[in-house]
Amino acid sequence: MNKQDLDYSLYLVTDRSLTLGRDLLYIIEEAILGGTTMIQLREKSSSSRAFYDLALKVKKITLKYNIPLIINDRLDIALAVEADGLHIGQSDLPYSVARSILGPKAIIGLSVESVQDALDADSLDVDYLGISPVFSTNTKRDTAIPLGIEGVRDIKSISRHKLVAIGGINLENSQAIIKAGADGLALVSAICSADSPRKASEDLLRQIIKSKK
Amino acid sequence: MNKQDLDYSLYLVTDRSLTLGRDLLYIIEEAILGGTTMIQLREKSSSSRAFYDLALKVKKITLKYNIPLIINDRLDIALAVEADGLHIGQSDLPYSVARSILGPKAIIGLSVESVQDALDADSLDVDYLGISPVFSTNTKRDTAIPLGIEGVRDIKSISRHKLVAIGGINLENSQAIIKAGADGLALVSAICSADSPRKASEDLLRQIIKSKK
Repeated sequence: MNKQDLDYSLYLVTDRSLTLGRDLLYIIEEAILGGTTMIQLREKSSSSRAFYDLALKVKKITLKYNIPLIINDRLDIALAVEADGLHIGQSDLPYSVARSILGPKAIIGLSVESVQDALDADSLDVDYLGISPVFSTNTKRDTAIPLGIEGVRDIKSISRHKLVAIGGINLENSQAIIKAGADGLALVSAICSADSPRKASEDLLRQIIKSKK
Repeated sequence: MNKQDLDYSLYLVTDRSLTLGRDLLYIIEEAILGGTTMIQLREKSSSSRAFYDLALKVKKITLKYNIPLIINDRLDIALAVEADGLHIGQSDLPYSVARSILGPKAIIGLSVESVQDALDADSLDVDYLGISPVFSTNTKRDTAIPLGIEGVRDIKSISRHKLVAIGGINLENSQAIIKAGADGLALVSAICSADSPRKASEDLLRQIIKSKK
């Protein structure tokens, strides 16, 4: 997987509590069939063994479709299943430590919660920044103040990195976020809780492609 | 640190909720000054960053006294702070995965909750087994059925590994566990919650040395 060719357009971040009782593996495969370009597996309360077992299963799917698998927070799980990369937030391991352990080939994304965070990240060789959150969301309760469309635009104007926006994104507001400078949209409930995760992905991807023109 | 020369006699497993409001770093240093021979840092609810920051501080102390630092469960934290080893339970990463990532020099301990677990572990190149729990304990609520002194004796009779007993151990029952075949005792509340963690360690170590004669 060549890091330069990565497509961040439609980035699914998983949340097992939002699948409406459906198997997460089903959601992931449907999302990929609908055009999702990256998968981030996020597990905040399972044991290491349960996270590892799940990640192995998810990796079979992402390998089948040649979609990058990014692990949230847990560098050990990323190493254990040989995932494509790691996403770290401001309360996870320091970026420099993660990079030194994972090496230059790993995709590493870093959440930024302010323009200052994005400025601080400009000297780092991160692969992308997660702008978090763009809008307020019920999915994650420990988030910072929403940055809004204006925040995406501000970060775009000062950052050299690829930008993925997350938080409260849906079909309606997707166009504005891409036009403000995001390279991709990260979605949780808009796909995990959709009646059809495949159709939701198709609709979102169509909107993203249109907005990028 | 030569793995063959490790002294498992008095093995402190930390629990920040049991320090009676005292700084964990104080407890650890006092325990070492009282004769504790190994430290296992266990954090079950802190963020990765908080665990990492704490582990860095603990490592300064263990390095100062040349005491091995073992990280509970989180292989990523063990790598990030270059700890001496990792302790894994039955709901953590598989042993073989942990060993392949950490390499042959790392100290890796594995919890066993039955004679069968110990038999299964006999073909593995683990450095020690944690017999868990010997007695019932309030420290950890998700434990298996207590194995008792008899369980320690049974595991000793079939295992080739070093054995560290954990769970409900105190000065009173320490002698019987060593005499049943344990190479060391792992303690949580008996040190973390002691009026004087240093004196508690001194008393326990004295008892252990006497019992081994």
